[in-house]
Amino acid sequence: MLRTHTCGELNAAHIQKEVTLCGWIQKIRNLGGMTFVDLRDRYGITQLTFDHATSIELSEKAQRLGREWVIKATGCVAERHSKNRNIPTGDIEIIVEHLEVLNESLIPPFTIEDESDGGDELRMKYRYLDLRRNPVKNNILFRHKLSIEIRNYLNNIGFIEIETPFLIKSTPEGARDFVVPSRMNQGEFYALPQSPQTFKQLLMMSGYDRYFQIVRCFRDEDLRADRQPEFTQIDCEMSFVEQEDILNTFEGLVKHIFKTVKNIELTDIERISYADAMKYYGSDKPDARFGMRFTELNDVTQHRDFKVFNDSELVVGFVAEGCAGYTRKQLDSISDFVRRPQIGATGVVYLLCMENGSFKSSVDKFYAQDDLKAIADKAHAKAGDLLLIMSGVTEKTQKQLCELRLEMGNRLGLRMAGEYKALWITNFPLLEWDEDTMRFYAKHHPFTAPKPEDEALLELNPGEVKANAYDLVINGTEIGGGSVRIHNKVLQQRMFKALGFTEEAAQQQFGFLLNAFQYGAPPHAGIAFGFDRLCAVLSDCDSIRDFIAFPKNNSGRDMMIDAPSAIANEQLKELGIQIKN
Amino acid sequence: MLRTHTCGELNAAHIQKEVTLCGWIQKIRNLGGMTFVDLRDRYGITQLTFDHATSIELSEKAQRLGREWVIKATGCVAERHSKNRNIPTGDIEIIVEHLEVLNESLIPPFTIEDESDGGDELRMKYRYLDLRRNPVKNNILFRHKLSIEIRNYLNNIGFIEIETPFLIKSTPEGARDFVVPSRMNQGEFYALPQSPQTFKQLLMMSGYDRYFQIVRCFRDEDLRADRQPEFTQIDCEMSFVEQEDILNTFEGLVKHIFKTVKNIELTDIERISYADAMKYYGSDKPDARFGMRFTELNDVTQHRDFKVFNDSELVVGFVAEGCAGYTRKQLDSISDFVRRPQIGATGVVYLLCMENGSFKSSVDKFYAQDDLKAIADKAHAKAGDLLLIMSGVTEKTQKQLCELRLEMGNRLGLRMAGEYKALWITNFPLLEWDEDTMRFYAKHHPFTAPKPEDEALLELNPGEVKANAYDLVINGTEIGGGSVRIHNKVLQQRMFKALGFTEEAAQQQFGFLLNAFQYGAPPHAGIAFGFDRLCAVLSDCDSIRDFIAFPKNNSGRDMMIDAPSAIANEQLKELGIQIKN
Repeated sequence: MLRTHTCGELNAAHIQKEVTLCGWIQKIRNLGGMTFVDLRDRYGITQLTFDHATSIELSEKAQRLGREWVIKATGCVAERHSKNRNIPTGDIEIIVEHLEVLNESLIPPFTIEDESDGGDELRMKYRYLDLRRNPVKNNILFRHKLSIEIRNYLNNIGFIEIETPFLIKSTPEGARDFVVPSRMNQGEFYALPQSPQTFKQLLMMSGYDRYFQIVRCFRDEDLRADRQPEFTQIDCEMSFVEQEDILNTFEGLVKHIFKTVKNIELTDIERISYADAMKYYGSDKPDARFGMRFTELNDVTQHRDFKVFNDSELVVGFVAEGCAGYTRKQLDSISDFVRRPQIGATGVVYLLCMENGSFKSSVDKFYAQDDLKAIADKAHAKAGDLLLIMSGVTEKTQKQLCELRLEMGNRLGLRMAGEYKALWITNFPLLEWDEDTMRFYAKHHPFTAPKPEDEALLELNPGEVKANAYDLVINGTEIGGGSVRIHNKVLQQRMFKALGFTEEAAQQQFGFLLNAFQYGAPPHAGIAFGFDRLCAVLSDCDSIRDFIAFPKNNSGRDMMIDAPSAIANEQLKELGIQIKN
Repeated sequence: MLRTHTCGELNAAHIQKEVTLCGWIQKIRNLGGMTFVDLRDRYGITQLTFDHATSIELSEKAQRLGREWVIKATGCVAERHSKNRNIPTGDIEIIVEHLEVLNESLIPPFTIEDESDGGDELRMKYRYLDLRRNPVKNNILFRHKLSIEIRNYLNNIGFIEIETPFLIKSTPEGARDFVVPSRMNQGEFYALPQSPQTFKQLLMMSGYDRYFQIVRCFRDEDLRADRQPEFTQIDCEMSFVEQEDILNTFEGLVKHIFKTVKNIELTDIERISYADAMKYYGSDKPDARFGMRFTELNDVTQHRDFKVFNDSELVVGFVAEGCAGYTRKQLDSISDFVRRPQIGATGVVYLLCMENGSFKSSVDKFYAQDDLKAIADKAHAKAGDLLLIMSGVTEKTQKQLCELRLEMGNRLGLRMAGEYKALWITNFPLLEWDEDTMRFYAKHHPFTAPKPEDEALLELNPGEVKANAYDLVINGTEIGGGSVRIHNKVLQQRMFKALGFTEEAAQQQFGFLLNAFQYGAPPHAGIAFGFDRLCAVLSDCDSIRDFIAFPKNNSGRDMMIDAPSAIANEQLKELGIQIKN
């Protein structure tokens, strides 16, 4: 090794010891006859000291060094005169005797500091420099630690990691596939997996009964903030289990993760049905760190003179505790918030529950004080509280009020970093109607089993069929989801039919799976977690990009290596394809 | 859980206990009033017993079961009358009280036994059934165990696993890339990585200093037996190290693997230079489980009347100990072997060292007994030994004699399963001349550094430049390879030039790397191991396919899911490509 120690490990116990360190130059300070260099590596920072009085040559060499140069320095560990309590090596410095420049550096395009002066685009282009910064480095190290903990936990309870193929078959159901032209089978294409779903189900049929894989998946979707064309999934499946077993097993995993990487004892994960999540939070991924649960107010608001409420499918509100003192300006800013195009509401009705027992509201002229009291009572608003009410068609109104709830949570400081609330959302509908294409789509995916008691509805009333499907939500972010699977050929065929597949299309695309069901498929169920997102949520971070070493931008482009790019005509010819003009 | 225990864990200690098992029916035997069912799951086999005298209904239900049906059986653990010492559960049986059929099965297309009656193609098509067989299952479990051991070992010595992208940039150097058309950037393509080489080097520049990744890689090559278009690599890189540090670090990993998964204490790994490997074994991946090292015999064979040897660049042989008694037929079969088109030699010269001190040879008429004695002495052949000699141009002859050596090793039973001999091959040439394209190619890859003392030869005599490059070879199979890397822009440019890149092409394809070298690139080196092959070699198995859950056939086709396949015109249109007729 070129070094004897790292830049993070030396302390008072090493004083008098001769050491060699390697690293990057973080900072140089020339103080009269002394030159101080902060040397950085993955493990920390150590101060190097060059004394002009001892060696002019060495000292002058040190003064010529620049930021981000790579050096090797040998010297003696000495006690510092002015100790730095902020870093583990702050008690010591190295009195350098030998200095070797291993590589020079141009002046980096942005500062390698916790707070960099580089813009997003510049840091993406020079990602290898951005990765030197502590905040990014800590994310990458955190991700590694998390993956080790997850693998060992699952291994210890009998799960085995099995690698599934990346060059698979394209299926039109679900998101858009990335495809790979086959040279050996011209005119044909592989697809990159959106998930190893069918393979893990086949592994259950093969008897592997506890499978997992931390695996890259691909989706050729138009990218929103926080979506990447390639992402990593913790993919799991079990045989001879019911929903309850999956929830318990992976609640164990989640608790283990919190304990080992966050040192947090997570309480039991609350379960809430999809219907209740929509009813009380207007969302199937509620942030349950704070209350403000919704109350439906139709019965106490309708049948008065207020046409807006009378005509509404849903009138629903929540209480912002202690906010009755809000000023006109504050109330207006709430109205402004819901009118933003992203929310798209026409307004919000407020009801201030005054300390003296009276009520003020934006709809005073339609409701008497008694009416307002009845509304407040229904919503469990107390004196001093603010009740916020929205109305309209059910789903849209729920969604809008959900946004307002989250906004109020932010304004009131109720969405605390470092605080975690996990939920299981259960009893999802099996299918979802799409108005644009006028057909049903699978809410989770086409392999999710209907609840046995709802099977008969699959043809009669598909929209009403519930599934043993579940999501894990932490702090309002969906971290994972799964379901009990179909393990019966006929039921799977009925499901494909409900999704509008012809029998031929189903056989052509999923024939191998349908066939496999005939050779002793066990009951099985599973779940998959978004690993990038899990890293981000555990770090109270909004962007998954911060946890991916080499992410792509919103056009799916790797700015650093400049990919995708044109390829040689020769390559296209070999593949038997051409670019369409 | 649907079961209380697995089919592999019950024993005498559980007698009298009420248990529920789930699994697949391996075998049914009807013996008069008794029906015995062998129930199988991932963990083993347990005997279920149905007594006609106790319940006619249950017994008849059991008799209707078929092979590979999935059932759930509840009953009492009882001591067996005739114990089966061959399986861990052989002391007990379950007296079944409740039986539930979870799923029926058609008769499988081949037997689910250790030795199956199914041909290769059938088993590939029904891979999910093949995966139920013990030999395949054990391979998959072994692979998992190996990956856990490798990850934890590397994690414990400070390596961190960092995921690198799969959608990268195509480069014409090296093997052929699989490419992925970009929908969002039409006319442009991603490539799937042949290895994360440049990314791991960038991570060194980012300061991560000990990186690893167990990662899928892709090569669009014409497939030979034992090549897969997608394969898994254990990819590693370190900073501030020299070749010696890499060899020592990964020798530690190899020893750990042998200890933990094979319970074998591997001795120190012998190091042998590329030149010596070629000289003594005719191969850069020698099987060193046995001797038969080559001796060059030019000086004692040439300058006689035997024109074949006189005209040969190389005359070389090895000793097959104790084989002087070989019959004419045995000697002919050796000649036949080397004349096979795969070997392509014109013949082999033999020299029998008789017990009485005389010599017999196929070239008796050209050499006197004294000449033959001199040849035998040079090769250290003793009385009773057989000396086999081949001649011709150096490299071809070495290769042919290498094949013969391996064949003789097989015939003499010297290549023992369960015995392991690892070697480090070092000092590889940096470049390799290709006669077809009349240019140099990188022996390892374009990022390998020349030995510092040979740098000046890069322009003067490229073929003579040696590199700090190394391979790990176990039992004649290359398991891994790596090198000290270039970390200097100018040297990398000189290397690209030696490989025939124009400056523009180098900049266009590897500009990001060349740029990165300018911002403080540390000295670094690394290695990558073929994970599939490592699994196979550790299991004394020839085929990597046996260690891949869902492999492709030699046409790159997944027979089970039938991929690659045609995709919809709509998809092609979205991607802006068309199939060329």
